[in-house]
Amino acid sequence: MSKEQRAKVDAMLRQPRPEGPRTVEEMRAGFKAMMAEMIVPDGIRTATSTLGNRPALLVEPVERPRTGTILYFHGGAYVFGSPETALSLTGNLVARTGFRSFSLDYRLAPEDPFPAAIEDALSAYRALLDSGEDPATIAFAGDSAGGGITVTTCLAARDAGLPLPAAIVAFSPGLDATRTGESMDTRAGFDPFFTRESLEHTGAMYLAGQDPRQQLLSPALLADLTGFPPMLLQAGTNEVLLDDSTRMAARARAAGVDVILDVTADVPHVFQAFTGVLDEADQALDRAALFIAQHIRTPDTTTASAR
Amino acid sequence: MSKEQRAKVDAMLRQPRPEGPRTVEEMRAGFKAMMAEMIVPDGIRTATSTLGNRPALLVEPVERPRTGTILYFHGGAYVFGSPETALSLTGNLVARTGFRSFSLDYRLAPEDPFPAAIEDALSAYRALLDSGEDPATIAFAGDSAGGGITVTTCLAARDAGLPLPAAIVAFSPGLDATRTGESMDTRAGFDPFFTRESLEHTGAMYLAGQDPRQQLLSPALLADLTGFPPMLLQAGTNEVLLDDSTRMAARARAAGVDVILDVTADVPHVFQAFTGVLDEADQALDRAALFIAQHIRTPDTTTASAR
Repeated sequence: MSKEQRAKVDAMLRQPRPEGPRTVEEMRAGFKAMMAEMIVPDGIRTATSTLGNRPALLVEPVERPRTGTILYFHGGAYVFGSPETALSLTGNLVARTGFRSFSLDYRLAPEDPFPAAIEDALSAYRALLDSGEDPATIAFAGDSAGGGITVTTCLAARDAGLPLPAAIVAFSPGLDATRTGESMDTRAGFDPFFTRESLEHTGAMYLAGQDPRQQLLSPALLADLTGFPPMLLQAGTNEVLLDDSTRMAARARAAGVDVILDVTADVPHVFQAFTGVLDEADQALDRAALFIAQHIRTPDTTTASAR
Repeated sequence: MSKEQRAKVDAMLRQPRPEGPRTVEEMRAGFKAMMAEMIVPDGIRTATSTLGNRPALLVEPVERPRTGTILYFHGGAYVFGSPETALSLTGNLVARTGFRSFSLDYRLAPEDPFPAAIEDALSAYRALLDSGEDPATIAFAGDSAGGGITVTTCLAARDAGLPLPAAIVAFSPGLDATRTGESMDTRAGFDPFFTRESLEHTGAMYLAGQDPRQQLLSPALLADLTGFPPMLLQAGTNEVLLDDSTRMAARARAAGVDVILDVTADVPHVFQAFTGVLDEADQALDRAALFIAQHIRTPDTTTASAR
């Protein structure tokens, strides 16, 4: 069954779309419309909130909440997206784990280029710690650009002398602004979302002329990951960003970091958003939920079971 | 807590052991004594059985059995070990999933070198299929040499025209008889079990003069994995065999196979056997159980949850 699902998702994404350069507002509206199609699970409720100096969407389980927080960073190439566009992903992690999540509305390029997003994420994490939350009960999670923010905010937190969170979960993270992964070429014909040109178009807005060879922009190449918490990296083989994850995993192993590199074949960038449509999406979310539950250690954390 | 557990396990394994070459019988007795220390879970029962032309240990859950079978291959460098020495690992997978397992007592070197073990494993798999079991309800699992057998038996099954099992789980698999992984050197000082010399000592018994450059001996380098089922590879960074897993994962990704490369830092070869002693062992077994449950699809398979 699932081979057909993978092919269906691929064909759906390959429908003709408007050609030519789009304005930032067109990109934002298009992404919002696409992500509005994704299924938000039952059993959660949302509320507007503030974390640090930015708005955040609080996503909570309706029943049986557990002590612990997922600090979530949405995707959108640092140019588009919001906590609402990622609500399917965030909501599924909350519904599957029982932990609450704050999904951060960090500043976007081109209005606010690098490192604004990371500054906002660090500020949000600091606010959680300042509120008395134990870092052992916090996991970072994010998709695409937000997957990159999980890693770079951890680097920034370490440099700021803060304790690190308990775990990192990144769905199809962008971890290399130099775009030097082999998959940039080898997977180009398979990726229904990205081309080198499209990534460089939005990437230039985020870089704003700054050198991509910095660990906060290209951590898969340059970051010192010593002392990092356990990481789960999930990606598909139909994406040019695949080797952002494979290289980050190799780097984590070399630094003595627990790391799971979880690759699903024939699925696109952030395939987890196809929950309810693609079995692999739900299975990947279940694995991510187990991983988070294994690492957020609180008194009411019970041993997870596959039964 | 767990950093202390990892250090304790490492120190325990570094206790002085008898020096110098040991006979095959001494190696078998030593391995049996070591593995007898591992904790076998409650909630399972065992019975002697036969699968194909070899004895097998049937391991079943006492309560709530589910439809599906884990065909397990024990470790021991193809020279020592038995279903009994792997009972902690097999039993934990059974207890965590509810599936039964047949743990195969395949022939060992030097009495029966390559490819005897693979022939026995293929014969056992064929017997399961001949008994009417749906390959979609069978997972292969194994540790160390047995992890290698999960992969090579799948290759042999494909070559024999048989349908493939639903999933492969390999704990610290040996997948390269040429011993050319970088970790053979880079992790040599960290591995409390193996040296190049010790691996080549037992490896020569299994090879019996045959060329290691064959896909059934060095699948991490040579195997065509096209059409393989989803694979979970778990390894520790304190093992010279680490790159058997990293190279197999890269090969699987390139062949379009779903593959999870799950690496835990600062733990030794087949650290999952330290269940009950090392938190990482139990967490890794929980992840393996979820993976098996996700891929053995039977009517009574319910969605796993991390709650």
